Amino acid sequence: MELNGVPIDDTYAEAFPIWVSRVIITAVTEEWAYKAAVEATGFATSAIGCPAEAGIDCYVSADDTPDGRPGIAILICTSKKKMKEQLIERIGECILTAPTTAVFDGLSDVVAGVEEKIPVKLHFFGDGYEEKREISGRTVWAIPKMEGEYVGEEEFGAIKGVAGGNFFVMGETQMSALMGAQAAVDAISGVCGVITPFPGGIVASGSKVGSKKYKFIPASTNEAYCPTLKDKVEGSKVPDGVRAIYEIVIDGVNEDAVRDAMGEGIRAATKVPGVARISAGNFGGNLGPFKFELKDVLKDYL
Amino acid sequence: MELNGVPIDDTYAEAFPIWVSRVIITAVTEEWAYKAAVEATGFATSAIGCPAEAGIDCYVSADDTPDGRPGIAILICTSKKKMKEQLIERIGECILTAPTTAVFDGLSDVVAGVEEKIPVKLHFFGDGYEEKREISGRTVWAIPKMEGEYVGEEEFGAIKGVAGGNFFVMGETQMSALMGAQAAVDAISGVCGVITPFPGGIVASGSKVGSKKYKFIPASTNEAYCPTLKDKVEGSKVPDGVRAIYEIVIDGVNEDAVRDAMGEGIRAATKVPGVARISAGNFGGNLGPFKFELKDVLKDYL
Amino acid sequence: MELNGVPIDDTYAEAFPIWVSRVIITAVTEEWAYKAAVEATGFATSAIGCPAEAGIDCYVSADDTPDGRPGIAILICTSKKKMKEQLIERIGECILTAPTTAVFDGLSDVVAGVEEKIPVKLHFFGDGYEEKREISGRTVWAIPKMEGEYVGEEEFGAIKGVAGGNFFVMGETQMSALMGAQAAVDAISGVCGVITPFPGGIVASGSKVGSKKYKFIPASTNEAYCPTLKDKVEGSKVPDGVRAIYEIVIDGVNEDAVRDAMGEGIRAATKVPGVARISAGNFGGNLGPFKFELKDVLKDYL
Amino acid sequence: MELNGVPIDDTYAEAFPIWVSRVIITAVTEEWAYKAAVEATGFATSAIGCPAEAGIDCYVSADDTPDGRPGIAILICTSKKKMKEQLIERIGECILTAPTTAVFDGLSDVVAGVEEKIPVKLHFFGDGYEEKREISGRTVWAIPKMEGEYVGEEEFGAIKGVAGGNFFVMGETQMSALMGAQAAVDAISGVCGVITPFPGGIVASGSKVGSKKYKFIPASTNEAYCPTLKDKVEGSKVPDGVRAIYEIVIDGVNEDAVRDAMGEGIRAATKVPGVARISAGNFGGNLGPFKFELKDVLKDYL
Repeated sequence: MELNGVPIDDTYAEAFPIWVSRVIITAVTEEWAYKAAVEATGFATSAIGCPAEAGIDCYVSADDTPDGRPGIAILICTSKKKMKEQLIERIGECILTAPTTAVFDGLSDVVAGVEEKIPVKLHFFGDGYEEKREISGRTVWAIPKMEGEYVGEEEFGAIKGVAGGNFFVMGETQMSALMGAQAAVDAISGVCGVITPFPGGIVASGSKVGSKKYKFIPASTNEAYCPTLKDKVEGSKVPDGVRAIYEIVIDGVNEDAVRDAMGEGIRAATKVPGVARISAGNFGGNLGPFKFELKDVLKDYL
Repeated sequence: MELNGVPIDDTYAEAFPIWVSRVIITAVTEEWAYKAAVEATGFATSAIGCPAEAGIDCYVSADDTPDGRPGIAILICTSKKKMKEQLIERIGECILTAPTTAVFDGLSDVVAGVEEKIPVKLHFFGDGYEEKREISGRTVWAIPKMEGEYVGEEEFGAIKGVAGGNFFVMGETQMSALMGAQAAVDAISGVCGVITPFPGGIVASGSKVGSKKYKFIPASTNEAYCPTLKDKVEGSKVPDGVRAIYEIVIDGVNEDAVRDAMGEGIRAATKVPGVARISAGNFGGNLGPFKFELKDVLKDYL
Repeated sequence: MELNGVPIDDTYAEAFPIWVSRVIITAVTEEWAYKAAVEATGFATSAIGCPAEAGIDCYVSADDTPDGRPGIAILICTSKKKMKEQLIERIGECILTAPTTAVFDGLSDVVAGVEEKIPVKLHFFGDGYEEKREISGRTVWAIPKMEGEYVGEEEFGAIKGVAGGNFFVMGETQMSALMGAQAAVDAISGVCGVITPFPGGIVASGSKVGSKKYKFIPASTNEAYCPTLKDKVEGSKVPDGVRAIYEIVIDGVNEDAVRDAMGEGIRAATKVPGVARISAGNFGGNLGPFKFELKDVLKDYL
Repeated sequence: MELNGVPIDDTYAEAFPIWVSRVIITAVTEEWAYKAAVEATGFATSAIGCPAEAGIDCYVSADDTPDGRPGIAILICTSKKKMKEQLIERIGECILTAPTTAVFDGLSDVVAGVEEKIPVKLHFFGDGYEEKREISGRTVWAIPKMEGEYVGEEEFGAIKGVAGGNFFVMGETQMSALMGAQAAVDAISGVCGVITPFPGGIVASGSKVGSKKYKFIPASTNEAYCPTLKDKVEGSKVPDGVRAIYEIVIDGVNEDAVRDAMGEGIRAATKVPGVARISAGNFGGNLGPFKFELKDVLKDYL
C-alpha cells in the first residue's frame, strides 16, 4: 500500500474511550481568544501524567459564535469523574482570568444528541454581584470583574469520545520526519472535533504500556521503534533507512472525526520529501475497543 | 506622583513566598523550544486552582545553553511539597515528549548560592536503555525515544522566591487598559528571572481573598475595583474616568527581579495612550512578607 | 443608523478600478507558504508610492490546491501596464527564491470568466534545464534549483477589480479605535477575494488627494479627520468624543467581495468596546465609479 | 575542517559593497512595530529584481529607543542613487501609514563615524499642520494624522556596507537542509547590524551571474549546485549524499557584522541533524572586493 510514493503499513491504530467536552472561547479579537485557549489547554498532553488531555480544535467565525465575536473551540478530554473539576479549573483559572473572554458550550455544534451535562458554576466568583442573562437563547452568567464583565454558560455537554487515535511518521532523517509530522498537524487542524494534544501536536517519545525493567512506572519508551536501538534490541520494528519516528496522537468527539483526522494527516505527511513510511500503533487489539485500519482510513486517497 | 503624565498611586504591592525552579529547554530551533515551553507552562496561572504557577522567563541564546542550541527558560512556581511532582510531570509529559528537546537546570544562571536540589528521575522512561553522559560539565541522561534521543539533567535547583508582585493598569477605555497591560508584559519579558503567569501575562479578574457571600470559595471578585459596580458598592476604588483595570501579576526568583519587572512594566504601560492611572494590590500588609512600594520601584524613572 | 449600539454615518465609500491577479503559493507546510506570501506582498500598501498594492487573501486547504499541499492565496493589484512586471518580480524574487514553494494561478477559483492572461515566464531561470509538466491538468514548468525543484504556472489571470473600498473606525481612545480596526481586519480575513493592503491591514494616516500648501505632492493628511486638529481647522469632521480614527482600505476582485468585506469588517468593529462611530471616505462621488453605501453594505445586519 | 562533525569546505564567500541605512521603528507595542517593519521590508530580497534589499535587524528595547517605546531596527540596502527614494517610499508608505509608529535614524547605534545623511522629508504630508519638535535631543517632525500624530526624524545616515555575505547549508534530505538553514537564520537574528533579506531569511534558488542559454537574463540557476542535475551537468559540485542546498545571504553594515553573522549561522546549522556539509559561494574572487574565508569566520569555534 502506497500513498504519494510512501509505503503505508497494513496495520491499525488502537484507541480508547475518553470523556470529551468542547468549550468555545470568544474574545475581542482572535488573538485574545487564542491566548486564553493556549493557557487553558496547556499541561494536557497525556492522561497518564497530566490532569487531562486538551487542545485547540479550531477557530470559530464570529458568524458562528453566540455573541458574534471571534472564537476558538477547545476540547478537554478526561475521565468522567475528573471532567467537572477540570472544566471548573481550566475555565475558571485560565479563561475567566483572561482579557475580554466569554465562554460557551460548543459540543452540540459538532455532535448531535448530547445528553450528559456538566455543571460549571463559576458565578460564585461574582460574590453576589453576578446576574443571569440570555445570549442567543443561551442562559449565561455575567460576572463583574476588574476588567469589566465576564460572560459564560455554566453547563457543558460531555460525551464518550475517542482517545489515542494515532499514526507514525517515519523519516529518512529526523528533520524529514519532523516536517512530515508538522504537515500532518497542519492538515488535522482543519478537521472539526479533534485535537492533537501533545506539544505542537507531535509525540517524539511514543511509549509502550508498562516497563520491562522498572515495574513502578506506567509507561516507558517503545524500544522496538527507537532508531538508536535498532541493532540493540530483538525484533526492532524500525525499517531500514528510517532514522526518526514521530507519533501523531488524536483525540476526538467520535470515531468519524478521528478517522478523518488520520486520513488528512497521513496524506499531508506523505507529501513531505524524506518521509519514508507511515505506520500506526496498537497493542494487539486487546485493550482498546476502537480500531482504525490504515487501509480504511485512506480508502478515499489510495 | 506621575510618570509620563500618568498618576501613580502612592501604595504598594504585597507579595508572598513561593518555591521556584528554572528549567532551560533547548531544541533544534527556537520555535520548537517555544512549543515545548508553552505546553509545559500551561494551566498554571494561579496556585489557587492550578497545580502550579508557571511561565516563560526568556530566550536563552545558543551561546549560553549547555548544548549550544537555542533555548527558552521557564519558571515553575509552587509549594516546596508539590515541586518535585510538578517538575516530573511538566518535564516528563510536556518536554520529554516534544520534538528535539533537551532540558537543563537554569536556576544558577540567575541566582547565586542555590542549595536545594530536586531530583527529577525521568531516565526510568528509558527502560534500561538509557545512559549517563556529560555535557558542558553537567551530568545528563540520554534516553532513547522514537524520535531519536532525549537528553536531560535530573536535578533542578529550587529557591524560595516571590509570588504575587503586581500592579494595576487602569484605562479610560477597556482597550486602552488592555494595550497598556500588553505593553507592560512586553517590557517585563525582557527582565530575567520573572514570569507573568496569567493568560498572555494579564489578569482580567483581579480577586480578593475569600468571599462575603459564598463562604465556600477561596477567592472572589474584587468588587471595590470593578468599574461596573462603581455606583453599586460602597467604597469603590475605581477612579473617575476609569472604565477597566487589568492586573499584572509577577512571580520571580527574588525581590530584585520582581522589583525590576514592576518598574519596567509600569513605565511601559504609562507610555500607552488612554492609560489613566497605575496602582497596586495589597491586603493591608498583614499577609505577605514582601512589600513593593511603587515610589521605590519607580525611583529611577520619576 | 446604529449597529451594536454604535452610530453608523449615512454615507458611502468611493472606490476605483484596479487590475487584480490572484496567486496561490503552496509549500511543504503552511508556515513556509506564509513566509513567501509575506515577502511577496510587502512594500505594497498604496499604488501612490508603492509599485503595487498586495496582500494575503486567504489560506487554501491542501484539498483545494493543485498539488495537494497547503497554500496561501495572495492578490496583486496594480495598473494593467505594470501587472506583468509586478508578477514577474514578486513571484520571481520572493516566491521562486523561497523554500519549497510552487505557484499557481488562483483567480478562476474566485471569479468566473477570466479572459485576460498575463505571461510570467520564469522558466528562463532554469537556463535550459527546466522542463514542462502537468499538475492537475495545469501546465507548469519545473525548474531545477539548489534546493531541488521549483514548480510554477506561467500564465496568470487578471481582471479589472476594485481598489479603495473603505470604512473608518472611530474610537473614544486611540487604543479602542485600534482594536476595533484589528477586529475588522480579523473578520475580513475570512472573506475570499479581498485584501487589506496596509500594514497589519490598517491605515493610520488616511489622506486627501493633493495638498493645499505643497502643490508638488499627490496626497496629504486629511486634516478634516485629524483629532488633534479638531479645534484648528474649519469644518472638522471629527465627532465629539472621538480621539482617533483608523481607515480600513479594501481591494477586491469585484464589488461583491468588497461589499462583503466591508460588512463583516464594520460589524466586527462595532463589537469592540470604545468604538464610537463608523463612517467611510469618499471624494464627493466625482472620482470613483464604485459607491458602497453603508446602509446597503450593512442591510443584513441592521 | 569540521564543526560539530559537519565538514566545512575550505572556501570563501565573496561579497560586494552596497549602501545601507538603518531605521528604528517604535510603536505602542512590539507587535505593532513588527507589523510595520514587515511591510516596510517586503519585496526586498535581491537588488536584481527588487527595488532594494531590506529586512529586520533586531528588536530594540524601550530603554534604547529615543521615545522610550519598544522598537525594531530594519536595514534598507540599495545603491546610493536609489536610497533616498527607497527611504521615502518605504517609510512614507509602510511606516507612516501604520498604527502608532514613530521613526528614528538607527545607524549611529551600530557604527561610528557616519558622515552621509539622506534627507527624507515626509513632513509635507502634514500640509502645513506639521511641526518641529525635539525628542531625546533629536529633531523630529510631528505630523497630524487621522490616528493622532506621527513622529519622525527626517535625516537618515547611510554608509557603504556589505551585501552578499553567504554560506551554503547542504542536507542529507531537503528538510534537514531547510531546518539547518532555519537554525542559522535564528542564530543570525541575534547579531546586530545584519539582515538575511530573502524569504524567511533563506535562499532556495542560489544563482549564477548571467545565463549560458538565455543571454537576456541577469542571473540563472546555479546548475553546478542543483542536486537534481548532479548526473546531468559536468563538474557538478553537489557532494555525494547531499539532496538539497540552501544559501543564507547576509547584508550588513560592515565586514565585522557579516563575519559574525556567518560564524553564528554556520555554527547553528551544524548542530542540526542531517546537515551534511557547509560551503560558501564566490565568483572566483574577481567581482567582489570582500572575501570571507570560512576558516577565518569559524576560527573561534573550530
